[in-house]
Amino acid sequence: MVFQTLIERKRDGGELSPAQWRAAMAAYLAGEVPDYQMSALLMAVVWRGLSPGELDALTAAMLAGGQRLRFDDYPLPLVDKHSTGGVGDKVSLVLGPLVASCGVAVPMMSGRGLGHTGGTVDKLESIPGFRTALTLAEAAAQVRKIGCALFSQTAEIAPADARLYALRDVTGTVPSIPLIAASIMSKKLAEGLGGLVLDVKTGSGAFMTEPARAAELARTMVALGQSQGLPVVALVTAMDRPLGRAVGNALEVEEALATLAGEGPADLLAVTLALGTEMLLLAGAAATTDEARRRLTEALGSGRALAKFGEVIEAQGGNSAVIEDPGLLPQAEAVEIFAVPAGGIVRRVDPRPIGEAVVAMGGGRRRLEDEVDPTVGFVITVKPGDRVSAREPIASVFARDADGIAIGMEALGRAVVIGETGEEPLPLLIDRIEG
Amino acid sequence: MVFQTLIERKRDGGELSPAQWRAAMAAYLAGEVPDYQMSALLMAVVWRGLSPGELDALTAAMLAGGQRLRFDDYPLPLVDKHSTGGVGDKVSLVLGPLVASCGVAVPMMSGRGLGHTGGTVDKLESIPGFRTALTLAEAAAQVRKIGCALFSQTAEIAPADARLYALRDVTGTVPSIPLIAASIMSKKLAEGLGGLVLDVKTGSGAFMTEPARAAELARTMVALGQSQGLPVVALVTAMDRPLGRAVGNALEVEEALATLAGEGPADLLAVTLALGTEMLLLAGAAATTDEARRRLTEALGSGRALAKFGEVIEAQGGNSAVIEDPGLLPQAEAVEIFAVPAGGIVRRVDPRPIGEAVVAMGGGRRRLEDEVDPTVGFVITVKPGDRVSAREPIASVFARDADGIAIGMEALGRAVVIGETGEEPLPLLIDRIEG
Repeated sequence: MVFQTLIERKRDGGELSPAQWRAAMAAYLAGEVPDYQMSALLMAVVWRGLSPGELDALTAAMLAGGQRLRFDDYPLPLVDKHSTGGVGDKVSLVLGPLVASCGVAVPMMSGRGLGHTGGTVDKLESIPGFRTALTLAEAAAQVRKIGCALFSQTAEIAPADARLYALRDVTGTVPSIPLIAASIMSKKLAEGLGGLVLDVKTGSGAFMTEPARAAELARTMVALGQSQGLPVVALVTAMDRPLGRAVGNALEVEEALATLAGEGPADLLAVTLALGTEMLLLAGAAATTDEARRRLTEALGSGRALAKFGEVIEAQGGNSAVIEDPGLLPQAEAVEIFAVPAGGIVRRVDPRPIGEAVVAMGGGRRRLEDEVDPTVGFVITVKPGDRVSAREPIASVFARDADGIAIGMEALGRAVVIGETGEEPLPLLIDRIEG
Repeated sequence: MVFQTLIERKRDGGELSPAQWRAAMAAYLAGEVPDYQMSALLMAVVWRGLSPGELDALTAAMLAGGQRLRFDDYPLPLVDKHSTGGVGDKVSLVLGPLVASCGVAVPMMSGRGLGHTGGTVDKLESIPGFRTALTLAEAAAQVRKIGCALFSQTAEIAPADARLYALRDVTGTVPSIPLIAASIMSKKLAEGLGGLVLDVKTGSGAFMTEPARAAELARTMVALGQSQGLPVVALVTAMDRPLGRAVGNALEVEEALATLAGEGPADLLAVTLALGTEMLLLAGAAATTDEARRRLTEALGSGRALAKFGEVIEAQGGNSAVIEDPGLLPQAEAVEIFAVPAGGIVRRVDPRPIGEAVVAMGGGRRRLEDEVDPTVGFVITVKPGDRVSAREPIASVFARDADGIAIGMEALGRAVVIGETGEEPLPLLIDRIEG
């Protein structure tokens, strides 16, 4: 294989064969292809796209280089959920224990936050003692024992993806639907699942700001799952405002705990139940939407879902007393109330400046090696469409110091738009796509 | 400057500012930008192209990193010619001495052969003792003394181009009109010229196989010269058959010597005179096309042009006795005659298999560090449109051994198409573009 001829073929709009994708990925992982050739190929893919056959071959090639979770003789159905990322998206923290408490096994492998969106792993690590870096063997054993593990992506799974993602991140080759689809699906296919639910977010706080692009990504991943033998259902959901009220690692854990106790905000609950319903249906743990919903609601109301989260925390070395006493989570040094200057209708709560402010305040990452401060963030109590009075307090800023408070207050000033008329927000649940 | 944002801007179809191109090239040359980011930017340029302003800025930035030839107080006008490369293209060997013998100074910086096209530097080095690796100071001194130097591109001039070219060559980013234009013009602008003539070749033996693409490249370089203050005239010429009769290093030197003595093949002479006319007009050494042509023809007929080549060979350490006795050039070990199997009209002499066979026979390069054998090649005595009889000898193969002869005979069998009807060849002189 002369790698350059593969670049030229893709550059000229041609297709590479499955054997060529396989050889390309194997050679790259073996260090036989320099990054400067791979980045040129990636840019050509951003330009020309991939045919469904090529995407299938690339994903299989990325999967081939790594290990997989094995549950061959396990009695429970296994499903997982993946979100493309948003601001205030703590759904995984609720959904993993909730679905597991309904008798479905959830091996939930998550990432860290990068850029303006948070990451489930960072949120979990704000629970004192919680260890996310499980080996694949540990994760599998825990799923067998208690039905759920919440762990971080390891280099054992899809190592090609880890290297490609780092390269894409610095070469302007992230925003390509097939490359995003291959990256997500190569990891999820390694989990040994019986079904996968995707939450593809759209709006200014998502990577896919346009709903049409989000739907295209969703269709691409559903089709890819189908051709790889994995049933996938994708929901396209709104990320033109933060999900729930809390944004920031420990603050989001606290909100997830409240939601597991049946006291979550309506939008977070609605998205969680919609995704959970799909998971139960895919797993065969419910026959109808109504039945799935009833089981989920019952698990929340009875305390079983919250208790399952306690088991997971316990199993992964965390202090499960946070379930009863969220005050055990790390607390911010400084807190300040934000009030709207004038009354009217909330037209917009732009998630982008909120997510970026969390990073600027120390609660997110500019580079993968950055440390995150779990305590900083926001609690925003209004949603687009709410009526507010002049000087009404609508948010709190949690920060390390006065500088952080200033960043947070400034971000709220930009994010929250009050007026009498304006754009309608996106519906919370925009689209549903299945194979 | 965050290089990645430049990649993203170009990827999304935007323009980079002159300051951004300058900073990008300076950082790349300083080793602050890794090749994997540069190759992604180059692929984005292949995709999106460059605006005229961007091309201007990139070329200026590439020029800025290197040295220039200086002829501030020199009395003669300086002009040069550049060819985009073809099979049998020995025009530079004739044109440099010829134009210099008409009182115009020619600092002719040339490249080595790569791929199926030959390089002037390789051809010159088949003259025993000829040294092409002059420093810029040596080249300038020789031009001042005898009006002509034939030397190889050095790293002193446009070092950014040397690094970019090596990277483009292995990342599928060669075929971009603005990148080709910037590469050629950044070197030529460093020569301190008063005018430049471009020979943009088109046809199966050229890099631009389509005449429309060749004309676009020509227009791009003429416009670029104009905005950089260098008068440029471009001719688009045919490369759907070899130029002249000889293909191969020493064989082409021999044909160049014959042409300088007034005994060259008609097509080679026609292209040489057309380019030489433009050079004399640009230099102000002739007022009209007729006058320019007359002076050039006179220089060939009188022996002045050939004598000037002798001076150049002498000045660069070569054995100038080759002028009188081309038998002093290195001679092939094996020679064989190629005859056509059946009679008819020559429909096609495809330069591509001929050029590729020279490489395969050891007379060209697959990699820049390969050694070339000066003796191997072809002399093909027919042109498209000629009538031939069955078993008529129409070519000779010059090789190192029987294997080389076999490669050459097989290539001729593919290259030469005989028939009664077929495609018309391109006109020799296809287009003329000036600013």
